[in-house]
Amino acid sequence: MIGVIDAGTTTVKLAIYDERMLVALKKEPVIKYNPKPGFVEFDAEDLARKCQMFADMAIDEYNVEAIAITNQRTTAVLWDGKTGRAVFNALGWQDMRGNALSEEMNRDATIRMARTAGMIARGVVKLLPTLKNKRRVKWLITLSRLSIRPNHTSVKLCWMLRELGEKKEKYELKAGTVDSWIVYRLTGEHLTDYSNAAATGLYDSYYMRWSEPILEIVGADEEMLPKTLESDRIFGEYRNVPITGVIADQSASLYALGCWEKGELKVTNGTGTFVDLNVGEEPEASTGGLLPLIAWKLKSETRYMMEGMLFYSGSAVEKLKEIGIYDDVAKTSEMAFKSRNEDMLLIPSFTGLATPYYVSMPGLLYGISNAMTREDIAKALLESLAFRIAEIVDIMKKEFPVELKRIRCDGEMSSNDFFLQRIADVTGIPVERGAILSGTSFGAHLVAGRAIGKWNRDFCMPFSDVFERKEDIRDKYEKWKKLLNIAMKIKL
Amino acid sequence: MIGVIDAGTTTVKLAIYDERMLVALKKEPVIKYNPKPGFVEFDAEDLARKCQMFADMAIDEYNVEAIAITNQRTTAVLWDGKTGRAVFNALGWQDMRGNALSEEMNRDATIRMARTAGMIARGVVKLLPTLKNKRRVKWLITLSRLSIRPNHTSVKLCWMLRELGEKKEKYELKAGTVDSWIVYRLTGEHLTDYSNAAATGLYDSYYMRWSEPILEIVGADEEMLPKTLESDRIFGEYRNVPITGVIADQSASLYALGCWEKGELKVTNGTGTFVDLNVGEEPEASTGGLLPLIAWKLKSETRYMMEGMLFYSGSAVEKLKEIGIYDDVAKTSEMAFKSRNEDMLLIPSFTGLATPYYVSMPGLLYGISNAMTREDIAKALLESLAFRIAEIVDIMKKEFPVELKRIRCDGEMSSNDFFLQRIADVTGIPVERGAILSGTSFGAHLVAGRAIGKWNRDFCMPFSDVFERKEDIRDKYEKWKKLLNIAMKIKL
Repeated sequence: MIGVIDAGTTTVKLAIYDERMLVALKKEPVIKYNPKPGFVEFDAEDLARKCQMFADMAIDEYNVEAIAITNQRTTAVLWDGKTGRAVFNALGWQDMRGNALSEEMNRDATIRMARTAGMIARGVVKLLPTLKNKRRVKWLITLSRLSIRPNHTSVKLCWMLRELGEKKEKYELKAGTVDSWIVYRLTGEHLTDYSNAAATGLYDSYYMRWSEPILEIVGADEEMLPKTLESDRIFGEYRNVPITGVIADQSASLYALGCWEKGELKVTNGTGTFVDLNVGEEPEASTGGLLPLIAWKLKSETRYMMEGMLFYSGSAVEKLKEIGIYDDVAKTSEMAFKSRNEDMLLIPSFTGLATPYYVSMPGLLYGISNAMTREDIAKALLESLAFRIAEIVDIMKKEFPVELKRIRCDGEMSSNDFFLQRIADVTGIPVERGAILSGTSFGAHLVAGRAIGKWNRDFCMPFSDVFERKEDIRDKYEKWKKLLNIAMKIKL
Repeated sequence: MIGVIDAGTTTVKLAIYDERMLVALKKEPVIKYNPKPGFVEFDAEDLARKCQMFADMAIDEYNVEAIAITNQRTTAVLWDGKTGRAVFNALGWQDMRGNALSEEMNRDATIRMARTAGMIARGVVKLLPTLKNKRRVKWLITLSRLSIRPNHTSVKLCWMLRELGEKKEKYELKAGTVDSWIVYRLTGEHLTDYSNAAATGLYDSYYMRWSEPILEIVGADEEMLPKTLESDRIFGEYRNVPITGVIADQSASLYALGCWEKGELKVTNGTGTFVDLNVGEEPEASTGGLLPLIAWKLKSETRYMMEGMLFYSGSAVEKLKEIGIYDDVAKTSEMAFKSRNEDMLLIPSFTGLATPYYVSMPGLLYGISNAMTREDIAKALLESLAFRIAEIVDIMKKEFPVELKRIRCDGEMSSNDFFLQRIADVTGIPVERGAILSGTSFGAHLVAGRAIGKWNRDFCMPFSDVFERKEDIRDKYEKWKKLLNIAMKIKL
């Protein structure tokens, strides 16, 4: 049996797998603080305690052979190596306090120079397209859009270090993401895996090392940061049980959904939505706003992915429940199928839109009339989220000329038939629904199984449904994009 | 005692007044048909029957001295003088079947010539501003914006006459508005009053006669139409009780609210909202989209009014209840007062906007975010309706340089404190709430009382509350107008 500790944004979960079957699932809510609007903090000590409790439970009650760890990305923890205790609350990935700070960091001469170099590289590639396949050129092209964003670990770390100021000297500071914090507390080792490291904004995924220029801007040094390991290495032992299968949430899902090779695409629909395309064994660059990440690095293989995201998807469906449009999110699929209204459009910017528009703007509901119904609004919302996904898929198709044969989905909100149907309708690509919606923990368990020699890459989750295009809604999608463009320009 | 038959859009009511106090109120629902989207028909026979039943009840149970009639305007009835029976269902004022027909009528050479003459007059007035006070010039200026609209009685009548075609010869056709239909069925007389006639689009309010050029375009002749009387004349007798106090609904409200002289302004908030300004003893012209109407013509006085309207106000509040934002419209005032959100704006175009934008466009909710609440949406709606009223008041202030000392309100939706407060906040004009929200029937009863010598113009309804400006929200109003302008230009 393998136990997976899944440290998410809302809960910490323990999932126990026996021969690839889920046999037990436990949840504990995460203690979160919102001291100011836009601030999101986690109680790092509470998080460590709950993870340790689950590790004990996995060993005592299920006699597991290995413990895997998967987690929310980019959340930053800073702790003291002398006491092993966190110096601050962890700053959550959704925490936006670094807004001004990230702008300041982006004005740094190094960043500006890097962007210039990137722009030059893009110009050169236009003249000599074959250069595009060189890793160094891809790296340069990525630099052309280099932008430190407040959700990056780098900004959070910078904020904490500045806050400490002179007091820094008192501690033997260690920084890391949630996985490395848990590993540290269970084993005393300061380690992370490549998939987590790549998401921090501190890591150079092209050359597989912590980025010196960025560390300098942040004011951190490499000794503060964890050593990076393959996800299927042994990260240490806790009560004689190996810790392995350490992997970031979206990477774990991509793996679980069997998106192992170049051109495979998955969409995880949870609180937000993450669209990840496996781009193969070489890192790629995006000029269209996609995030280049390491999908996974295992002992025997490395895969890169490009990511696009929606900040709000499941949360948006919850939000319309809160204002009274329906009393149960499970009803929204049936409601939306009932609606015959084709004129209502929603711009689902509940906290901004994310990929590729990293702008702050309010959302908008268009098409209000005396004929509108609750059903129409539910449909407008679900369609708008499908349209947002289609935008990201369009960028992927444009930047990476691989044939997208299918879109594989997991995440709680993928239980919504109307939503998945609409993704198929707008993209024209068949949509497969994973039979296990929590691909994250399933993927971590698969990687952990490989680590301890139980299997190779020969098994992914089964799929319960396939949604084929029933109706071509590209015309409506074009209308919606037009509206989005208008909405983005509204300045009152 | 005086009995008022109030033939509204949803119900026919009988209100019995004794010494200016309401002593009884009965309601009967109106039978309405919607054979196609946008079609609104009334069963004219059913309407006549219910009014006669109420007249009998007024005489038998309350021994009334007079029966007054007030009614929805512009609804068209066509009947046969030989049998006294309606030839068609009545075409309701909201009926939009005449859309194409009104466009055709507007292309008529006479209409185009009239507009040209009007434009010339406007040009001349710019050079010789004193000319503006001449009635003929005002008439010409009004012609510059002359436009036959599908809600006009003229279009409905034209539609019915065309539909009859050759069969016209079979009948002794009589046409009229709801008041004249009721009077005809109770007394056999074919009469209407000036306030109803002026609203038909068939009447020349400047020269107090049916308009020959429009009648020609419609294909009707003057013999088909009722004779026009002052509202306080005796329109005949029913079972020896005089019928008098025949007056259109908005005129009756204006009278009831004591807006007897030039510069007095009232707002009736029902299903829709009607903003009426008493412009005094001479008709006026508007180039800003206001409708020139006869407020009333009584034996001893004539008053004109300019009108602006919102198609949807109370209905909009009902609509958001229907989609789940609240379960009781009575809660919306309290909800709106609770909201602290200043960023949510609504464009309340549920069936178009009406004055001064006679365009068809969908409504829009702007400012959707993860922080929005039901309270915020209720506030955005009520504010948007106040802003729409402010737009009309602004036109009135611009076109008629009289000091607006107060805005008097009646109609069911005027019970909403937040709404009335916001009208005061945005316009800066104190808002008085009538103690009797059904000003329509109260006004008709006051006119009927004058007709039978019970009193002169010395009494209007009492006022229960005054709302003074508490907060200047002109900045927000300007933002909202900017959004409205953007919304009107959206073409998807």
